[in-house]
Amino acid sequence: MKIYFNNRISRRKIEELFSRPSIDNNAAYKVVEPIIRDVKQRGDRAVINYSRKYDRFTGDSIRVSEKELTDSVKKISNELKEAVSLSARNIEKFHREQIPREYSIETVKGVLCGRKFTSIENVGLYIPGGSAVLISTILMLAIPAKIAGCKRIVLCSPCIGKKLNDAFLYTAEYLGIDEIYKVGGAQAIAMMAYGTERVRKVDKIFGPGNQYVTAAKSLVSIDPDGCAIDMPAGPSELLIVADQSANPVYVAADLLSQSEHGKDSQVILITSDSEFAESVKEQINMQIKQLPRRSIVKQSLKSSFILVVNNINEAIEMSNKYAPEHLIMNFNRAENSLDKIKNAGSVFIGNYSPESAGDYSSGTNHSLPTYGYAKSFG
Amino acid sequence: MKIYFNNRISRRKIEELFSRPSIDNNAAYKVVEPIIRDVKQRGDRAVINYSRKYDRFTGDSIRVSEKELTDSVKKISNELKEAVSLSARNIEKFHREQIPREYSIETVKGVLCGRKFTSIENVGLYIPGGSAVLISTILMLAIPAKIAGCKRIVLCSPCIGKKLNDAFLYTAEYLGIDEIYKVGGAQAIAMMAYGTERVRKVDKIFGPGNQYVTAAKSLVSIDPDGCAIDMPAGPSELLIVADQSANPVYVAADLLSQSEHGKDSQVILITSDSEFAESVKEQINMQIKQLPRRSIVKQSLKSSFILVVNNINEAIEMSNKYAPEHLIMNFNRAENSLDKIKNAGSVFIGNYSPESAGDYSSGTNHSLPTYGYAKSFG
Repeated sequence: MKIYFNNRISRRKIEELFSRPSIDNNAAYKVVEPIIRDVKQRGDRAVINYSRKYDRFTGDSIRVSEKELTDSVKKISNELKEAVSLSARNIEKFHREQIPREYSIETVKGVLCGRKFTSIENVGLYIPGGSAVLISTILMLAIPAKIAGCKRIVLCSPCIGKKLNDAFLYTAEYLGIDEIYKVGGAQAIAMMAYGTERVRKVDKIFGPGNQYVTAAKSLVSIDPDGCAIDMPAGPSELLIVADQSANPVYVAADLLSQSEHGKDSQVILITSDSEFAESVKEQINMQIKQLPRRSIVKQSLKSSFILVVNNINEAIEMSNKYAPEHLIMNFNRAENSLDKIKNAGSVFIGNYSPESAGDYSSGTNHSLPTYGYAKSFG
Repeated sequence: MKIYFNNRISRRKIEELFSRPSIDNNAAYKVVEPIIRDVKQRGDRAVINYSRKYDRFTGDSIRVSEKELTDSVKKISNELKEAVSLSARNIEKFHREQIPREYSIETVKGVLCGRKFTSIENVGLYIPGGSAVLISTILMLAIPAKIAGCKRIVLCSPCIGKKLNDAFLYTAEYLGIDEIYKVGGAQAIAMMAYGTERVRKVDKIFGPGNQYVTAAKSLVSIDPDGCAIDMPAGPSELLIVADQSANPVYVAADLLSQSEHGKDSQVILITSDSEFAESVKEQINMQIKQLPRRSIVKQSLKSSFILVVNNINEAIEMSNKYAPEHLIMNFNRAENSLDKIKNAGSVFIGNYSPESAGDYSSGTNHSLPTYGYAKSFG
């Protein structure tokens, strides 16, 4: 990771550093648009067709059977079962507090106005496949839906071969979700948005995904026949504001843990201390050697950087402008500066609050606004 | 308005009646896409150009001057001033209760997780022009933004000639909003979403509009360089569930008050009483004669209807499936059935809760999910 000094580079260079890799949605729209149209018209046949073609699905039925679900329970270690139940418990505890308050008040004499919340009846949750089994994402999306009281929760995830991963199935079974489809990509989004012969349409789709999934979500969200979506998704990112009171070993580990998410992840450290910047850089070079996913890390570190600024307030201002998905505040009395944070998805405070805790088990949600969307989404 | 009997028509016919006029977004996308691209590229010059072309704007500057704002105060009657302040007071009273609750809890020992809300810094509010001056929409959009603490509130509205309507300007001045542009249509949406030389971009756009405004909002919302939007908008609509305890004079007036919003508005009455249905029909035919906007009403009544069902529960089920923007429950002990309502934007209960109250001054918001979006939006 390269170290820059705010005082020694131009404003334009700083803007360039903080600018996210531009997303060419138009290319993705061109790819997914015919897939969506085809699923809308031909239904299940089109869904199976694209699943075979793009996900290398080889099964007969796209729906997960009851047997597959119950079988999964036997194949999971007790350790994993305990991890799932610990995470689930914390997520539930944290999210129960978010049930919005209903009220009614008399605005003028005799005029009683109130607010009531009803849950969305049918929700579709998209769980990405690919290089990691994202059982945490099932928990993060399904537990709030259950707390909200959604009647029908549908899961979709790409399936290579005939069967979904056992840990995935176990987590769904643990949460009592039984409508699961082995379908990924734009075909999964179209299937949920419009419905097919066998799959009833949903009212809103949630969950992250690659650029094609995101493009498909965008397109169905602006089609009156489609359905609503949570928000657009971009590559994952982390910004750390730290001073010399932070532990460079931890800060380096935090940066690396996020950079291994994907080649297009961006991690940024802004610090008021140039020696600290050097220590973190050294630590990164050391720790990277032990990482099994270091080839991904090396790629993502290319668009990442360390910036040395004059003071912490300057760093916070820059962070507000960038609006990071994840923000770690690791400096002296960071908790007192929380009110200065205007735009960020999830904020982690102090030496002992790694972002990974929020990714899995602390209880907060990891489905967050990326790509500066923290400026417009909660 | 035609009366149908649920028992005597086919299920397909019922579906046909409840199906909304299909919206051809693709046609609108084709119109607005080049406008958006042009504003993105040429900025202010393009904005002025389209304002002259489509809105018949003849002024020099698109920004409302301080003088225009202060002058408006002198031209407004005390009666209107009092109406604005009454509405504003009620809207503020109702919406203050919606400030979300922040909290923090220990999910496990030593792990403190919390939720904090920050306001969106820059919001753009679109106020439609056309056949009515929608000062109520300024109140409905701007008051919640002020309560939320948005730093910068931008208003856009189409301007025929050189000056915006005085009532419009007065309402903005009353709320302390001074960044107002005489720009409407897709060019206003693009200007706010991307910014120009003179207008800084916003983070989220709110407000209703015609099909071109809606199409433009959709397109900027799926462009990573654009901005977020509140929700898609369709034609306004009202569904009334009533029995013989309702006053047919009121029910007819409610139906008419909504049908005069626009040619594409849809109004529906579902009732358990066929005599009552007849009385409402008679009333409509009588009251319509007095309406200055009756040519619009006659158009919108073409896609409107009265349906007689066996009982109120059947009516509620149908309403949930339709998910009306506005629902009037005007039947015996309607308040006890409120929990059965799953999908509706705003609900009005009883003989003395006309929808118009919510449109203006009761305090609740009139910016609501139309076109069945109540299934996925709050």
